[in-house]
Amino acid sequence: MSDAVILHEYAPSGNCYKIRLTAALLGIPIERRNYDILKGETRTPDFLANVNANGRIPVLQVGNRFLPESNAACHWLAAGSVLIPSDRFGQADMLRWMFWEQYNHEPNVATLRFWLASIGERALTEMQRSQIAGKRAAGEAALTLMADELNRRDWLVGDAPSLADICLFPYTHVAGEGGFDLARWPSIGRWIARMEALPGHVPMSD
Amino acid sequence: MSDAVILHEYAPSGNCYKIRLTAALLGIPIERRNYDILKGETRTPDFLANVNANGRIPVLQVGNRFLPESNAACHWLAAGSVLIPSDRFGQADMLRWMFWEQYNHEPNVATLRFWLASIGERALTEMQRSQIAGKRAAGEAALTLMADELNRRDWLVGDAPSLADICLFPYTHVAGEGGFDLARWPSIGRWIARMEALPGHVPMSD
Repeated sequence: MSDAVILHEYAPSGNCYKIRLTAALLGIPIERRNYDILKGETRTPDFLANVNANGRIPVLQVGNRFLPESNAACHWLAAGSVLIPSDRFGQADMLRWMFWEQYNHEPNVATLRFWLASIGERALTEMQRSQIAGKRAAGEAALTLMADELNRRDWLVGDAPSLADICLFPYTHVAGEGGFDLARWPSIGRWIARMEALPGHVPMSD
Repeated sequence: MSDAVILHEYAPSGNCYKIRLTAALLGIPIERRNYDILKGETRTPDFLANVNANGRIPVLQVGNRFLPESNAACHWLAAGSVLIPSDRFGQADMLRWMFWEQYNHEPNVATLRFWLASIGERALTEMQRSQIAGKRAAGEAALTLMADELNRRDWLVGDAPSLADICLFPYTHVAGEGGFDLARWPSIGRWIARMEALPGHVPMSD
């Protein structure tokens, strides 16, 4: 890899941690640049013009090219590695969990954590507060779907850890900060322990 | 391809059309089974147990294996074809647009179409009605981001159509049904014409 790889991130974000975890498990060095999203540092004209027009982190910079979307960044890092299944169905099934994460899991499990643990319930808007119950139910449904799968198998795809596990790990393992009681889903607890035991694993706080 | 490929779908859904469009452009025959989501046909015990525990269509069945998530199904169909860039960054950049579609585009552009054109504004819940303005603004931002990119290039990734274009086409080209005025984004109109001119293209109503 000749190009420098730079992660533009907000370190407490689970979406950024996905990328650090993928890089750590594969032993790929990355440089990190931090932006405080609570201070609007990803909505500045400079950020919008030069890093991501969508005003969001993470963005993975590879040389002079910029790759937004956490799961796409993980895919770039893991291309050709053991973290992506080698067969056609396995690759698509891994992506299935990653698309599901962005549509069914993150907007509920991660958003409630951000609202309750980062912004704080009393500072939420009326609109946000009115969505808590719906996001709670949808987040519980997402965790239940994962738990049912993890009752039948050790890893979400095939018989080895893949990007599907890595991309679902960050927000799942801190779901308690969003008010989800993980003790309800023991198979998720066992999967979290397996993830934390992987050689090269780094915690979210690193 | 030895296994039969069956699309479990609700034909008016843009997520299902993505898969039909990918298959048509690649000349892959698929069998279709229809479910009426407005009548709850994807929430029956049989569907949840045998097709998708998440209660959603589309699901692509390959032999006796089931693949939910529209963009993952497109990826299975297109594996190894010209619709997926051959280079590592191009592949990740294509996935970037596909994850962005599920997170920033579909929940706004597609949901407003479903609410306004399928359910009807008067039949919406109070909670849904309160979200219209937010989804309108977010949908406009998504279409603007696409339009800016399509002002600079003919296709979203590289210089040829890829799954990024195919997965963004369905809900974008009928965004008018959700109240978005596509005349505001001329570069999107030109891209829609290019998509419709591709050999093998099929319309959503097929």
